Amino acid sequence: MSPLPHHVQPRHVLLAGGVGGAKLALGLARTLQPGQLTIIANTGDDFSHLGLAISPDLDTLMYTLAGVVNEESGWGLRDETWSCMAGLEALGGETWFRLGDRDLATHLERTRLLAAGHSLTEVTRHLCSQLDVATRLLPMSDQPVRTRLDCDTASGPATLAFQDYFVRQRAEPRVKAIQYEGASRAPPAAALAATFTDPGLAAIFIAPSNPWLSIDPILAIPSIRAAVRSAGAPVIAVSPIVGGRALKGPTAKIMTELGLRPSAQAVADHYGDLLDGFIIDQCDAAEAGPIIDAGIAVAATQTVMHTLEDRQRLAAFALGFAATL
Amino acid sequence: MSPLPHHVQPRHVLLAGGVGGAKLALGLARTLQPGQLTIIANTGDDFSHLGLAISPDLDTLMYTLAGVVNEESGWGLRDETWSCMAGLEALGGETWFRLGDRDLATHLERTRLLAAGHSLTEVTRHLCSQLDVATRLLPMSDQPVRTRLDCDTASGPATLAFQDYFVRQRAEPRVKAIQYEGASRAPPAAALAATFTDPGLAAIFIAPSNPWLSIDPILAIPSIRAAVRSAGAPVIAVSPIVGGRALKGPTAKIMTELGLRPSAQAVADHYGDLLDGFIIDQCDAAEAGPIIDAGIAVAATQTVMHTLEDRQRLAAFALGFAATL
Repeated sequence: MSPLPHHVQPRHVLLAGGVGGAKLALGLARTLQPGQLTIIANTGDDFSHLGLAISPDLDTLMYTLAGVVNEESGWGLRDETWSCMAGLEALGGETWFRLGDRDLATHLERTRLLAAGHSLTEVTRHLCSQLDVATRLLPMSDQPVRTRLDCDTASGPATLAFQDYFVRQRAEPRVKAIQYEGASRAPPAAALAATFTDPGLAAIFIAPSNPWLSIDPILAIPSIRAAVRSAGAPVIAVSPIVGGRALKGPTAKIMTELGLRPSAQAVADHYGDLLDGFIIDQCDAAEAGPIIDAGIAVAATQTVMHTLEDRQRLAAFALGFAATL
Repeated sequence: MSPLPHHVQPRHVLLAGGVGGAKLALGLARTLQPGQLTIIANTGDDFSHLGLAISPDLDTLMYTLAGVVNEESGWGLRDETWSCMAGLEALGGETWFRLGDRDLATHLERTRLLAAGHSLTEVTRHLCSQLDVATRLLPMSDQPVRTRLDCDTASGPATLAFQDYFVRQRAEPRVKAIQYEGASRAPPAAALAATFTDPGLAAIFIAPSNPWLSIDPILAIPSIRAAVRSAGAPVIAVSPIVGGRALKGPTAKIMTELGLRPSAQAVADHYGDLLDGFIIDQCDAAEAGPIIDAGIAVAATQTVMHTLEDRQRLAAFALGFAATL
């Protein structure tokens, strides 16, 4: 059976961060035709390290979609070697951010192409093409947006760059506030505008990524938030909080530090009137009432994704839920 | 037995390129105390590749002195992995210049330190210190000098950057002339001046490296040539041509292309009145006469260095010969 012609294939957008977002991204990519899915990645984690332009979430999404990700860690490459890090350690260099040898090729190539004047959108398209990733993967912007965290650290209050907080300090410092430096003046990636005004757009999904660290940097770009809000398609988020705990990473810890109770409901409140629908885990079904009262449709299912089947099942569930809105 | 105090330890300088020069460098380093030897490395082969500052001869000398060089190839690191190159190949990147994974750490660290404002001399000292290399290894200059070759290529006459000629085109194009771009205005590395005027300087050796590609770039810096010429110590070269053939690389081929007969005598002629002594292989003993007639002392021995013992024996021979001049 040949795929449906483009004009009758509904299209979908996913806003996603790294490891958590990549699970739903893979589920959707395996369920939809390539032309039916655009993934918009957080680049607030991007940074320059050892002279290399590193885009952790773009790479995690790309490696996951290419089927080459290290499935144990959720990031980096499978069957990786670590000789360069061993060499850097011997030379007294910086090794707190672990870059695998084969992964280094991605950063070298990205850095080279950016320096040659290509946009991050173009570089990402090129890298995806080389890795046979057919799904459209876009950075939220070609201009830098940098997530910074106002924290209480062991040595007093400090504003930490994202990777300093997240990797070097293992997300241990207490977070008081989060800034998305550059977001208010960053233009969205050029390819985004047509995506949101596409008359065939059927749904905008927000992955179960950390709302504050992975999704808010995307929505902090004013025209992206406005485009999501005014798109002619329902906006559906998947809760990253299940049973009061984060699926991955420091989401629950950060919510507590920001004075919020870690719950699916608090996440729905945070996204607020941006949402038309919200997918919660079946174990949180009791929280559905207040969210529905706030005017957001709720659907409950098993949201924890261990296997590829889990990813595809949740993707199908989300697509079905979107069709009802 | 404790080493002699510094003021009675004679000091020595070696001008060297990469693989060929590193053999004599190691022999001298194993024979002398660390404070007795300064190695001045050719940086005419240096280039920027994949955004990295690469200094092939400095690295070959450093890795050789550190005992970590790949002894089979003479360059790069032993027990190296090649994942990054495999990754670059998959991404359609440039792979003609082979960079091992652990070796990449050296280039990343050098690039980072240079970008932070350190000189190549300082960076080299730091890297050597981290690898426990006690011998003083200096770049000829902290400013770029770039060897370029006027060649006849398959697509007509062209001026090729050194690594393009040497690695990408495997030294196959016919060489018509060689330029050392930047040499005439490059200041020698700051540490060099005192080395050449050191009253304890006992000898200046020129390694059996390619005279045109490895030694001439050093001597093309006017003040280095002048310092070698006016130093109060004999200058002794070891012939890189044995029995009319090069010990390694394209020396004989280039000599022929430049209209010279590949012979020890032609090398002695090339260095000319810079030399006080010349060490030739015993198989070239018949060439001694004309060289001696030109006012250069000649000593013949086995110059081909297969083993570590060969390197140390030739070093001892050169030191002994220098003491007679």
